[in-house]
Amino acid sequence: MTTDRLRRQLAFIVEIDKAKSILRNSLVIEEGRRENDAEHAWHVAVMARMLAEYAREEIDVDRVIEMLLIHDLVEIDAGDTFVYDTAARELKAEKERAAADRIFGLLPADQAAALRARWDEFEARQTPEAKFAFALDRLQPLLLNFHTQGHAWRKHGVRRSQVMAVNASIADGAPELWEYARSLIEEAVRRGYLAE
Amino acid sequence: MTTDRLRRQLAFIVEIDKAKSILRNSLVIEEGRRENDAEHAWHVAVMARMLAEYAREEIDVDRVIEMLLIHDLVEIDAGDTFVYDTAARELKAEKERAAADRIFGLLPADQAAALRARWDEFEARQTPEAKFAFALDRLQPLLLNFHTQGHAWRKHGVRRSQVMAVNASIADGAPELWEYARSLIEEAVRRGYLAE
Repeated sequence: MTTDRLRRQLAFIVEIDKAKSILRNSLVIEEGRRENDAEHAWHVAVMARMLAEYAREEIDVDRVIEMLLIHDLVEIDAGDTFVYDTAARELKAEKERAAADRIFGLLPADQAAALRARWDEFEARQTPEAKFAFALDRLQPLLLNFHTQGHAWRKHGVRRSQVMAVNASIADGAPELWEYARSLIEEAVRRGYLAE
Repeated sequence: MTTDRLRRQLAFIVEIDKAKSILRNSLVIEEGRRENDAEHAWHVAVMARMLAEYAREEIDVDRVIEMLLIHDLVEIDAGDTFVYDTAARELKAEKERAAADRIFGLLPADQAAALRARWDEFEARQTPEAKFAFALDRLQPLLLNFHTQGHAWRKHGVRRSQVMAVNASIADGAPELWEYARSLIEEAVRRGYLAE
């Protein structure tokens, strides 16, 4: 009785359970263990709802949330790339496109195309929604790093100038959140969480 | 420069990081460790987008997603209650209301009221959106249990009749998904994942 369409949708839903096993460099605050992609996607999706008023341009927040919920699914195949690892970031684009083909391709064609379009939109960072989503995708690990005494920064020897450079694009999506992020970075330096 | 409003929003965003440490009874498929509330909320939110066409009534899927993203935040204070533990479920309502007061109350008043209304709507299960959200909240652990050879059922000695009774309300939100869930339950019995 289960249609082929429903079977494909369920295969996708079971497949993406693997996002819960893709580890990032940020730590969960309470536990000090590495956060995974599913937790991160949930956290930024809630942030989008609560912080929508700070978007630089008018946005459809539901589209931002849709984007954020699926933006890291490609890492099921391609793995997570540390944002301060410049060499790895250049290699990841091709791997991620192949991953998008396979993972979104599990779905019925109409839904596969819709998710792929949303993911491409996120990656291109041209629309107001993509710029705001991207700003939150940067701000969330900053918050976790600050509240875990700069764990990921200290572990990887990241310096203030790198953090400023990587996160400055928060301003493209949400200027007031970038202003806040800068104050957090300065405070992190003062407290010794981040090297000058 | 950071406004009191933004400070409250950020306090909420940091507080809800704790949802990543609230463990459920379902296992993550790949790892065999217990799933947490953040991972679960993310998974059901994506399910809402992909399975919206099976809702019994017309729904605003974005409202379903909003509801699902925050539906378990009260468990930061109240803890997770296993769906087959009937005695604990009767005691949990009061604890969860107090938790909603505290956790949503971290936000600016307008946002606190909006999230509380959405959570109350979910709990009341009267609107088409709440019924559909609730159906997915039941279906997701069924999928995880099936794909981990009935781990949570076997561990807690849950029987087929209990699984049928607890999950029958999936039909209120999504009849075709309940039909699928029933076939999954029967297959679980056949494979010995679930006791007759």
